[in-house]
Amino acid sequence: MKISELGRAAGVPVPTVKYYLREGLLLPGTPTAPNQAVYSDAHLHRLRLIRALREVGGLRIAQVREVLDAVDDEGVPTHRMLGVAHRALGSSGADGPVPPDVAQARVDVDVWLEKRGWTVSAEAPARRALAEALVALRRLGRGGDPDAFTPYADAVEHLAADEVASIPQGARAEAVERVVVGTVVFEAALVALRRLAQEHHSRSRFAGG
Amino acid sequence: MKISELGRAAGVPVPTVKYYLREGLLLPGTPTAPNQAVYSDAHLHRLRLIRALREVGGLRIAQVREVLDAVDDEGVPTHRMLGVAHRALGSSGADGPVPPDVAQARVDVDVWLEKRGWTVSAEAPARRALAEALVALRRLGRGGDPDAFTPYADAVEHLAADEVASIPQGARAEAVERVVVGTVVFEAALVALRRLAQEHHSRSRFAGG
Repeated sequence: MKISELGRAAGVPVPTVKYYLREGLLLPGTPTAPNQAVYSDAHLHRLRLIRALREVGGLRIAQVREVLDAVDDEGVPTHRMLGVAHRALGSSGADGPVPPDVAQARVDVDVWLEKRGWTVSAEAPARRALAEALVALRRLGRGGDPDAFTPYADAVEHLAADEVASIPQGARAEAVERVVVGTVVFEAALVALRRLAQEHHSRSRFAGG
Repeated sequence: MKISELGRAAGVPVPTVKYYLREGLLLPGTPTAPNQAVYSDAHLHRLRLIRALREVGGLRIAQVREVLDAVDDEGVPTHRMLGVAHRALGSSGADGPVPPDVAQARVDVDVWLEKRGWTVSAEAPARRALAEALVALRRLGRGGDPDAFTPYADAVEHLAADEVASIPQGARAEAVERVVVGTVVFEAALVALRRLAQEHHSRSRFAGG
């Protein structure tokens, strides 16, 4: 297909496609004339993945490159490749000094995860996010035992198992795309659904006043 | 207690307490001398609520005022008061023109919620958030049937029912505080836990490569 058809099929404007070509995120097409080339389905899949990383995941170009490098390097095992994508999505900026209650909460979260039997890398950004939630509860005087998270962990555990089981074992690029879309889009959906369910239930509980 | 003790107990700097007093978010204390007043536990609870709305909920002063007005006006039924808090937390800025696929997704989400039997106000921001997730799936060519949300809705439904059941029926301010903290803090926790569970399960699924 021509570059205009490629752009249309992926929902990406042609100048943006040209930018990805210049940046080397997308491999050149097969030349057909001095200023023309044709592109294959492989280009289309790659472009869709870049779009998902950029628009859905909000990744910067350097982060997109990092994820694509992990996809392309067959020496990187699938599990580590997914980890690269996950971490790019979860990176939360620079670290300042850590207040003592935050440091304590991180330790408490680590112990709690260990007790639950979840094997998670030490530098997973979600560990810190969970510790921050714990700190917020404690600072507000709203308890602060990590066991408060147990019903939430139970609720997502089956979900996560099914999500992971649906990731194709062979196709690396597709696996990354599923992780990105699954993480970001279904995360937004999960949050919205919880609020909708809360409103529904609070309507019946507080209907009288 | 003195203003310095009040601030310390709520974890709010004294200049900020004075600002809330000037803005009328916090009622004046009982005067004891020309430039001194004492504050009660009611002040402390109110200050904690303001802090939760500001720091955890990220609300602007005008939105805090709106929520507090709903708390104070006993004529506002509990359910509507919680709705005010929920909506302040979920407000997503100004509306631009709505592209046709977004409009279609909103209709599809409305039909899907109706089918599920959830009673939710027409202007709930979470309706739109869910529609945006649906649009993202469709634009990425990743299906786009709202039934894809069903496992997520199932996972949060019990959670939401339990959360709502734990809200005290009488104490209005405490109910709002629980809604704010519950919505924001446990939302962050839920998202983090899903990512941790995904990593745990993907580690075992892709352990070999």
